[in-house]
This record gives sequence, C-alpha cells and structure tokens, in this order.
Amino acid sequence: MTSADPEPESVPTVSNSPADIVLTSQLQDVPVDRATAAARRVIDALLRTDRTNANLDRVAEELDNIADHLEQHAPVVAERLIDMWRGEGVTRHDPVTGPENAIAPPLALTGRADGSVDGVVTLTLPYQGPPGHVHGGVAALLLDHTLGVANAWSGRSGATAQLNVRYHRPTPLFEPLTVSGRMVSEDGRKINSAGAIHSADGTLCVSVEGLFIDKRVPRPR
Amino acid sequence: MTSADPEPESVPTVSNSPADIVLTSQLQDVPVDRATAAARRVIDALLRTDRTNANLDRVAEELDNIADHLEQHAPVVAERLIDMWRGEGVTRHDPVTGPENAIAPPLALTGRADGSVDGVVTLTLPYQGPPGHVHGGVAALLLDHTLGVANAWSGRSGATAQLNVRYHRPTPLFEPLTVSGRMVSEDGRKINSAGAIHSADGTLCVSVEGLFIDKRVPRPR
Repeated sequence: MTSADPEPESVPTVSNSPADIVLTSQLQDVPVDRATAAARRVIDALLRTDRTNANLDRVAEELDNIADHLEQHAPVVAERLIDMWRGEGVTRHDPVTGPENAIAPPLALTGRADGSVDGVVTLTLPYQGPPGHVHGGVAALLLDHTLGVANAWSGRSGATAQLNVRYHRPTPLFEPLTVSGRMVSEDGRKINSAGAIHSADGTLCVSVEGLFIDKRVPRPR
Repeated sequence: MTSADPEPESVPTVSNSPADIVLTSQLQDVPVDRATAAARRVIDALLRTDRTNANLDRVAEELDNIADHLEQHAPVVAERLIDMWRGEGVTRHDPVTGPENAIAPPLALTGRADGSVDGVVTLTLPYQGPPGHVHGGVAALLLDHTLGVANAWSGRSGATAQLNVRYHRPTPLFEPLTVSGRMVSEDGRKINSAGAIHSADGTLCVSVEGLFIDKRVPRPR
C-alpha cells in the first residue's frame, strides 16, 4: 500500500463498514489525551475566572513552566510532523475532532447507513462570537471539517476549494448542537457536500455547501 | 448613550480616527493576559512534545489542579457574560483576536486610511488541517472575524449572514500570513465585505466574501 492509494483499507467507508460507527479519533485513556483534556479545562476556566484573582500570576508561571517542560521534550517540528501523520486513516491532532488538540471541543462524528455523518457537541465561552452564541467562524470551522469526514465516509477525500456558509439564526452556546454533513454528488475530482448545525430543539442555525477537489497534500515522510 | 446607538463614541472608525491604529484588543501586562499567553504555549507544546514523555501524567494533574483553582474563583456564567460584555467597543475574549482567549492565535488588526484592515499572524500546529498547512476552517474563522472588524472600521456592525470562502492554494503554517478585509458596499441593513489571506511571498491563499446584516445580538445586562 502506498500513499497514492485512493482508499486505504484502514479508512472506514459506508460501503465497507457497519453503520453507526464513530469515524473520528476517540479519547483514549493515555497521558497525552488526559493532559489535553485538562488543557481544555484551563482554556475555558481562564475565560471564566475572576479577573482580580490574586493567584493569576502564579497560574501564568505554572503554565509557562509546563510549556517549558513539554518543549524541552519535543522533537524538531519536521520530525514531529512525520510522526503525527504516520500511517493512514484519521489523525488525532486536528482542531475540530482531535483528542490531542486542546483547541478542538472535540467533536466526535458517527457514520450513518445513509452516507451521512453527525455528532453532538456543546460549545462554551472559548467559542463565543455574539454574546452567548457561537462565533460564526467557529461554526464554519466545525462544518468544514465535518464535510471532510463525510466525504471520507463516502469513500472520497479532497481539499476544500469552496465553502459557502449560511447563518440562519444565532447558534447558542451551552446547549447540545448537532453537526451533520454528507457528500451530495461527485463529478470526477469534484466533490460536492452539504451540512448543517441544528440547536437542541431542532432549529436550523447554520447550513453549508462545500466543493472539494481530490488533490491531497502529501503526508510528510 | 444606550446599546441601541449604532456607533458609540468609543468605537474607532476610518472617519473619526487616525489611520494605522490597532483596532483589536492589545496584549496588556496584566496577569490574565500572561496566563492566557502561557496557556497558548501549553496547547502548542502538547501537540509537539514526545508522546512517550513519562511526565505527561504529572502535566495532566497539574493542569487539572490549575483548572480546579480557576473554576473555584469563577462567578456563575451569567454574571461573567455581563462582565465580559461590559461597555462598548472591542472585547478581549473572542477566539480570533482575544488576548484572554487561548484559542486565539491572537490576530491583531490595524485600520488603514483606505477603509481596509489587515494584520499579520503566524500559525502553528494547533491550527493545522492538511499536513503542514492551515485548516480550511481556521482560515474561514480568521476571515469571518476580520470582516467583522473591517465593517466596524467602516462604521457598520452586523452579524454574519453568508460567508463564501474560496481556497486558492494551501495556506502554509510557520510563516507570517497577512489577513485583510474591507467593507465593499452597503445597502440598508445589508453589508457586503471581502477579505483574503496571503502568504509571506504575497501569494493569494484564501479569499472570502461576506454578507452581514445589521442586527446585533444585544449585550447581556
């Protein structure tokens, strides 16, 4: 198997896999996932904590010490890139679903028998745009990634060429949102996909149409 | 002055302010900004550090302790929301420019005499999509926010209604990117804006057109 294989065996698709399987990297009981989950709590708590908290300087010092330690034990970035892209299939580091990326909420996506994918996520203050609501750009980020996963579930893979996002109403923070997507059509290297974000009561908040081109950036070797 | 004022005095615009001023919240020498900057280093270092680092469990424990402490000193979210939206003008907490949001790179944007805004930012592993390149959704996030700031610099304010993003070529990590935007036209409550991301050598990587509607979500009181 080479990197040129359009559909490596390790990538599940609706035609080779049982339905209702989770397609994104799942949280594992490993130290880096635990540390990343804790970092997510810190990001959120920094936005919520009392600004006059006298211990914030000590917190800054402790966080800098942790970063120093982690950086001292980090390989050069070129090596790390090769390692993080090793093998095929889903990665663990992207900013939407990655258990190892503290920026990711993270969103877990499940593949359905009809070719669609969906997942439920509750967003908090780090993802805020308008007061009490999700940043429009964060909604675009979640949807772009979800369409990519939907394409893979349909056996296709491509880079985003166009993303057209429509905002129907403000997307609320602090309640479970359903993010969904599916491949709609394909024409040679062109892949058309669509997705949406619905709030807990089923209201359509954001919809998206994406055009993807099957021309991958090669994984570092 | 009430929240219904379309253009509070505290919001700088191209017609009431000198050119080349920074429009986004600047990093201050205050504890919460220092702690957030350190948290950003932790997010990045967690993606880079050796996965077999024997101290990662201790790091997880320390981060959880910090989160516990910050949460213990946090007001309830409704109170915090009122506080974080107090007054008019730019906020300090958004996920693109916010010095208090560890998810934000952060991007600083400068208002120009011709009505445009721009800023330079270098993105690292937390913002990765394709290998070594910026996630398409992250580019959309930066551009959506930049158009909002551009609208404000032109004296307008609105929520994103449509965002059409075109990806011309992969946007590189690890080099300075120029993110720019400007209001293009206005028609009553409709505001049309456009923006782009260029790489360090001036190559167009991503362009965007946005439609915004002047209908703000009220700030919590």
